[in-house]
Amino acid sequence: MSTDASETAPTRRGRGRRPAGQETRDALLAAARVVFTENGFDRATSRAIAARAGVDAAMVNHWFGGKSGLFVAAMQLPVDPEDIVARVLDGPADGVGERVVRTFLGVWDQTDGGPLVALLRSVSGHEGAARMFREFITKVVVGRVVRAYATDHVDLRIGLCAAQIAGLGLVRYVVKLEPLASAGHDTVVAAIAPTLQRYITGPVT
Amino acid sequence: MSTDASETAPTRRGRGRRPAGQETRDALLAAARVVFTENGFDRATSRAIAARAGVDAAMVNHWFGGKSGLFVAAMQLPVDPEDIVARVLDGPADGVGERVVRTFLGVWDQTDGGPLVALLRSVSGHEGAARMFREFITKVVVGRVVRAYATDHVDLRIGLCAAQIAGLGLVRYVVKLEPLASAGHDTVVAAIAPTLQRYITGPVT
Repeated sequence: MSTDASETAPTRRGRGRRPAGQETRDALLAAARVVFTENGFDRATSRAIAARAGVDAAMVNHWFGGKSGLFVAAMQLPVDPEDIVARVLDGPADGVGERVVRTFLGVWDQTDGGPLVALLRSVSGHEGAARMFREFITKVVVGRVVRAYATDHVDLRIGLCAAQIAGLGLVRYVVKLEPLASAGHDTVVAAIAPTLQRYITGPVT
Repeated sequence: MSTDASETAPTRRGRGRRPAGQETRDALLAAARVVFTENGFDRATSRAIAARAGVDAAMVNHWFGGKSGLFVAAMQLPVDPEDIVARVLDGPADGVGERVVRTFLGVWDQTDGGPLVALLRSVSGHEGAARMFREFITKVVVGRVVRAYATDHVDLRIGLCAAQIAGLGLVRYVVKLEPLASAGHDTVVAAIAPTLQRYITGPVT
């Protein structure tokens, strides 16, 4: 996971000073990336993250609904999940497979999969992280896309999409298997979009 | 990863005694599981593994072609890769997608994905392990299956199959997303076999 110096440096705010909204949120995210990476999910506490960010621990609940939400946000794609969902939902049902692939490639390529590697390491190391990932899949990104277009077998379709998307990320960015690792987006879309299209709107049983 | 007591116990052979073939190989595998798990891939040495197994370090090269081959074998499915490949190749081209899914499910279900979790942890933590996994995919299991049935875009097809298979394993056994985590094999086959069939014998560009 990439954490540049500006992210990892403590914010050095005076005790008790409470910065305005977005600044607090950003400080918590930067602190969370460091604390989760250093301590793992289970041992990282909201209190420790807030202390590093120089804000009150209550801000974790206020901005992220708790440690879990903060973890999802911190380990996340460098784009707000809302933006991802909005991009994928912006079009007709018969193009959703392609939009899913293009959106994930666009987001992941920006960071060469760094957050994905961190996520896989967390997921394979902590049951807590696996639970986070389940919630993230079903409630945030994939679940909302599938629910927007699918009429049956919604939960199965969510799992199928998650499997194909995660597997693509694993092979392209973590295992780095060629030619998939450096293939252009059109090549990846031609190969994988039909799969996601079927998993979302086609027959799966 | 499951390592029962009989596997993890040192073999306590006298120094210099060289047991017959299969016994040496098994002792090295059992020792490798412990040493790789304790030390990670990079810091585990062939010498340390051989010492724990009570055999000469040259046996690592003799039986596995080196530390890499021993790692692949030790972190492996509880079935010889040769058996997996043989099962998948045993039938017509138009049923290969189904045979791939059934074979992997059969093997993975036996261990509830334990070796897969260990593999993912290694792959996300060590470039050496990612390289191992690339070699394993392309040379051992997936590559041989794809080469047996595909006539074009062989390397791309190998990556696509690897992505779908690994993603299925990740979601079913590691993230444990329902209903895919506990779905019967027929359900998983109905959903995923058509994908693998296309990745091996259908249009991918």
